[in-house]
Amino acid sequence: MSESQPSTALIDIIDHDDAIREIRLARPPANAINPALVTELNQTLDQAADDRIAGVILTGAPGLFSAGLDVPELLTLDEAGMRAFWSDFFALLQRVARSPMPIVAGLTGHSPAGGTVIALFADYRIQADGPYQLGLNEVQVGLVVPPVIHQALVRLIGAYPAERHLVAGQMISVDQAQAIGLVDEVVAADQVISRAVEWLKTHLKMPRKALLTTRAICREELAQAFETPGAMDLDQFVKGWFSEETQQTMKALVARLQKA
Amino acid sequence: MSESQPSTALIDIIDHDDAIREIRLARPPANAINPALVTELNQTLDQAADDRIAGVILTGAPGLFSAGLDVPELLTLDEAGMRAFWSDFFALLQRVARSPMPIVAGLTGHSPAGGTVIALFADYRIQADGPYQLGLNEVQVGLVVPPVIHQALVRLIGAYPAERHLVAGQMISVDQAQAIGLVDEVVAADQVISRAVEWLKTHLKMPRKALLTTRAICREELAQAFETPGAMDLDQFVKGWFSEETQQTMKALVARLQKA
Amino acid sequence: MSESQPSTALIDIIDHDDAIREIRLARPPANAINPALVTELNQTLDQAADDRIAGVILTGAPGLFSAGLDVPELLTLDEAGMRAFWSDFFALLQRVARSPMPIVAGLTGHSPAGGTVIALFADYRIQADGPYQLGLNEVQVGLVVPPVIHQALVRLIGAYPAERHLVAGQMISVDQAQAIGLVDEVVAADQVISRAVEWLKTHLKMPRKALLTTRAICREELAQAFETPGAMDLDQFVKGWFSEETQQTMKALVARLQKA
Repeated sequence: MSESQPSTALIDIIDHDDAIREIRLARPPANAINPALVTELNQTLDQAADDRIAGVILTGAPGLFSAGLDVPELLTLDEAGMRAFWSDFFALLQRVARSPMPIVAGLTGHSPAGGTVIALFADYRIQADGPYQLGLNEVQVGLVVPPVIHQALVRLIGAYPAERHLVAGQMISVDQAQAIGLVDEVVAADQVISRAVEWLKTHLKMPRKALLTTRAICREELAQAFETPGAMDLDQFVKGWFSEETQQTMKALVARLQKA
Repeated sequence: MSESQPSTALIDIIDHDDAIREIRLARPPANAINPALVTELNQTLDQAADDRIAGVILTGAPGLFSAGLDVPELLTLDEAGMRAFWSDFFALLQRVARSPMPIVAGLTGHSPAGGTVIALFADYRIQADGPYQLGLNEVQVGLVVPPVIHQALVRLIGAYPAERHLVAGQMISVDQAQAIGLVDEVVAADQVISRAVEWLKTHLKMPRKALLTTRAICREELAQAFETPGAMDLDQFVKGWFSEETQQTMKALVARLQKA
Repeated sequence: MSESQPSTALIDIIDHDDAIREIRLARPPANAINPALVTELNQTLDQAADDRIAGVILTGAPGLFSAGLDVPELLTLDEAGMRAFWSDFFALLQRVARSPMPIVAGLTGHSPAGGTVIALFADYRIQADGPYQLGLNEVQVGLVVPPVIHQALVRLIGAYPAERHLVAGQMISVDQAQAIGLVDEVVAADQVISRAVEWLKTHLKMPRKALLTTRAICREELAQAFETPGAMDLDQFVKGWFSEETQQTMKALVARLQKA
């Protein structure tokens, strides 16, 4: 059914039938997104394109796709380091948005903030059923989601629902996420990967050129969103990150996490 | 819980906890929107910004938020007067759209036409449950809603639903309004204000700068809509107002209202 | 109730009350869209405008609005012929999008691909209830829907649902079509025409100028979509049509249809 591929330090690579490749986050305990993981994800996606993979599934650990940004590690970065990280993270989002092959986000459990962000740019989102939380809760931790992420959310769920979800700054349940269109399907946790494989197979059996060209037309607005001036707002994000409000909120968050 | 503020002739101002200010239309019997009320609303919103109010609730009388434009009075205006009124009304919509603090429309009862229009530009809409009517029924009375109001509706409920609602020119029920997304919540009539206060408090307890910057990103398209050439279409609206079709329809409407 | 009008070879014209004209596809057995039918539809719509018709209903045969493009006939065309057909077909879509009077698509039965495409540009879509299939399944037969059709679908059902529907390339049921907003109403098959007449009458009794101006504002984006460079992508479509993948898929399709 599947065979192992050379995996990297923080990512397991599993090839399924029909040139479908699973890229599984493997950075215990929480698949928190740090500079090293972003670098490996960028390399792994490039490798998939080079290997002429037909479809990709992005997954995480059972019960936890990703806890989002690795705030404790990011708090140790200076301004240049933070700028480099944010730039690489946007390069990752752009790679997902402009991927030559369809990408399914297989959200195997919790997937708040950064985890949800990556999934926004994928072709399709399959969420594990269960008491999991996801959503763009950045405001609650003092962060501002840049315009390109806002645009991706607008495209997915509509302009006004995007305003309500982003401004609320709350994590939401699996059911709420499906209700507002943040995920496409909710399946039993142990069915996420097989369902993602099935979804890709159904699509990949169609006339290839027609499929890929149609997909490109439908996703052009998402790909172009990265070209809008201010789309990523790098300066503003870095400035915001080092602002007193954000640093205080972040440090309080980390202190709470360390106590827990 | 709340303390009275210096109110104006046509508006009651009630300050609630946590720098939340209620701006209550108080122009009996129907809170009909005439030049004086628009002027006072503009001043009251500027005052709220000057007073560093954190959140605003716009409300009306129990059972009647506003009956919409004061057609009998507006019919007495000449072209210059109508142009001045329409210009001030758009300044009001722009103030609501670009408000530095969140504004909740507390629709305490009926809220057709002009009442619905103002609410479109607010952050959130809470409607009193009951046999109330609202919606953009301008077509039925011979009026054309200008592009910027159309755009605000598109942003709220989507392009095609906006076409159907505007072209139909009908008032709709509370349930229909919620179904198409014209209001966000329907609560018991006596809960509208307390629910609006609660909604604002939940939002206002988050990191302030992140909240307001995220809100600005999400609402930028709405704010920018006023810059589009032809957005308000002042000339066209004034011309339409004095057209035979519109004047006849309006006068028939006023005659019916006076008989009733 | 209705009187016959001079019909054309492939179209029946039936005038109903209140200047409402039904334009009924009458090209047995399947109302397949070939160059002659497109030419007649263009002429018939121009005639309706010249006759100052107030509203149009586009219908087909009971159980079958249209089977879509007449692939067997189109496969006999050379490049110049295909280019001319595609250009005329786009002129038809543009005529529907920019029609001076409202057009209701009365989908009397099956309406896949080309049938759905025409309906996208109408004001309103009423679908016959039953085991019918519709939807934009072009990808499955190796075709790429050009950007202007994608845009019309986005406007109707939203950006992301449009991506999913187009990339899936599947026909869908009447219920699914209503769920995603591809049709507005589903009524008993023998009620499609009378319901379309009723819908038009309800709208046409409103102040005419306000109705038509509001409709024009709401539909301007749809009308303007034809002006976007690359909207119709004539060169690309013709090139795609004669590509190996598409020709093979089409010929296999025709072979299957002839066997059946």
